[in-house]
Amino acid sequence: MKKEPQNKEIVLAEHPSGVPTQSTFKINTIEMPDVKDGQVMLKSLYVSVDPGMRGFMDKGHIGYTGQKFNLNEPITSRTVAQVVKSRNGGFKVGSIVHGRLAWQKFQSINSDTLELIDPDLAPISTAASLLGIPGLAAYFGMLKIGRPKKGETVVVSGAAGSVGGIASQIAKIKGCKVIAIAGSSDKINYLENELGLDRGINYKKTADMTAAVKQACPDGVDIFFDNVGGEIFDAVFANINKKARIAICGQIAEYNASAPTKGPRPMHNLINKSALMEGFVVFDFKDEFEDAKKQLASWYNNSELKYRENLVEGFENIPTAFIGLFSGQNIGKQMVKVAAIE
Amino acid sequence: MKKEPQNKEIVLAEHPSGVPTQSTFKINTIEMPDVKDGQVMLKSLYVSVDPGMRGFMDKGHIGYTGQKFNLNEPITSRTVAQVVKSRNGGFKVGSIVHGRLAWQKFQSINSDTLELIDPDLAPISTAASLLGIPGLAAYFGMLKIGRPKKGETVVVSGAAGSVGGIASQIAKIKGCKVIAIAGSSDKINYLENELGLDRGINYKKTADMTAAVKQACPDGVDIFFDNVGGEIFDAVFANINKKARIAICGQIAEYNASAPTKGPRPMHNLINKSALMEGFVVFDFKDEFEDAKKQLASWYNNSELKYRENLVEGFENIPTAFIGLFSGQNIGKQMVKVAAIE
Repeated sequence: MKKEPQNKEIVLAEHPSGVPTQSTFKINTIEMPDVKDGQVMLKSLYVSVDPGMRGFMDKGHIGYTGQKFNLNEPITSRTVAQVVKSRNGGFKVGSIVHGRLAWQKFQSINSDTLELIDPDLAPISTAASLLGIPGLAAYFGMLKIGRPKKGETVVVSGAAGSVGGIASQIAKIKGCKVIAIAGSSDKINYLENELGLDRGINYKKTADMTAAVKQACPDGVDIFFDNVGGEIFDAVFANINKKARIAICGQIAEYNASAPTKGPRPMHNLINKSALMEGFVVFDFKDEFEDAKKQLASWYNNSELKYRENLVEGFENIPTAFIGLFSGQNIGKQMVKVAAIE
Repeated sequence: MKKEPQNKEIVLAEHPSGVPTQSTFKINTIEMPDVKDGQVMLKSLYVSVDPGMRGFMDKGHIGYTGQKFNLNEPITSRTVAQVVKSRNGGFKVGSIVHGRLAWQKFQSINSDTLELIDPDLAPISTAASLLGIPGLAAYFGMLKIGRPKKGETVVVSGAAGSVGGIASQIAKIKGCKVIAIAGSSDKINYLENELGLDRGINYKKTADMTAAVKQACPDGVDIFFDNVGGEIFDAVFANINKKARIAICGQIAEYNASAPTKGPRPMHNLINKSALMEGFVVFDFKDEFEDAKKQLASWYNNSELKYRENLVEGFENIPTAFIGLFSGQNIGKQMVKVAAIE
């Protein structure tokens, strides 16, 4: 007789102040879920952890998607899962799906927020990364706000992250010179030698970032794809060209701050340079998701777009993987492999 | 025998620190100019003074148009003048012209930077205001960056200034609800009762501007046309809607600062609201100037667009008129009438 698998969940144990720690989370052993009519039971395979989730952990947070995490409730994140039981005609047992799921080994949910994955298009874990939110953020931020033209100079901050790496390569595909900012020599090596970007700047080893950006971009900066904010923003912003486009994608320098930090007001330079700063979330472009995924998969399958997953194994290590995002060490998309496909 | 007129000029006597004073300027009596071949001699009629000129007075300033004012050289500004002598076939004696001219009663210049004015289109002084840089800034900033749609809520700061008043009315013409921020009860009265805007907010009498904007804009702010910056920016910015457009036209709160002031970084809210901030100068749109002027003149002649000039008389009063821009008292476009048309 097959042993009933053990189920576990990870809940928010306390609202973090600053960088989350192990005590932010608590792992509980829970019962296996029922499967009601219309539902499917899912087994989590790959769980995505993302810096942007940090904001949802604050007390009283209401984010742009209305997400927040409540005390003693499971954290949710983009997850690739397999259907292990089905009482829904649209989903066969064995199918691979993607959606925002709870940090639970097994869960039963209604199917309306689930997306079926075609495992032949690309490795299934990419549904939460290259073909998921990070890839789409890179795609729309670079193409719709950056609007790269051949020969332009593009700077990407947080370039070794999941969004930054893809955004940088899309700019290369479009014929731009790409300067990548990251925070370790391993990352710079990855960006210059593995992704083939024109130049990496290690901000942790650079005393004067404004001068370093100027030196790397002698023709000025036409597009700035910003994942970081703070003083790295200021350094790139001081070097923008007339008619520069700045896509504000993420602000990892800000996610652990309890209120917006202060910095030099950018308005005067925006006027002097007739420049544009635009924030976005991928859902602004949801009508174009399918076309974008096909294009990203095509670039990936043609080896024009490289992509690295940073994989941690084991459900219990999800908090560690999440906390590690804020230490500046991760290269590529941070995923946690919870179980193998059956 | 007709007496030769006396000529005068106003030069930059010292680089101001903060708000300019009378000692920033010096009035000299100078000789009447010669008229070389290809030149015209101009008599200044209307001289425009604008807050944006302040930046050109700083030591070592290089502005977006390359303008700066040097010590002991005449200040220049948009001026309407009459041709009194001509050695240039393109300009007859008596013609009215517009251009960036020196603060001199009479001057001779080459004609390539002069624009002929059609006195039948609108009062000639409007060449430096409604049909000049302020009108064009309002027109392009509101239509190209704001992109107003019927029923949207628009906030204009510095609304009683020459740009703000026109920008506010263009938004009304486009069917928007317009909230105007200004700094005196006279201005609020002008904006609400003379220009017919929906609501004025006197920031000098308002303790909590963020709450006041929220109360005036229960549906949030779709377009913010900002002439001011600083804390007024912050208050409006806290109330923007999803997909808001912010046209950064001027930053009068900053012009007397020696370095960019610090404020809350706007990036996080730009992401949350998928919003856009864009700076511009009118010259970005110079290919469309003639169409814009025709449209502005048409609205003016149909009484859809009202326009107030604040006129000071006398060449010697140009510095006083300029300094007065920073006291927050001026309504409409500040001009100095130097001489009558002959």
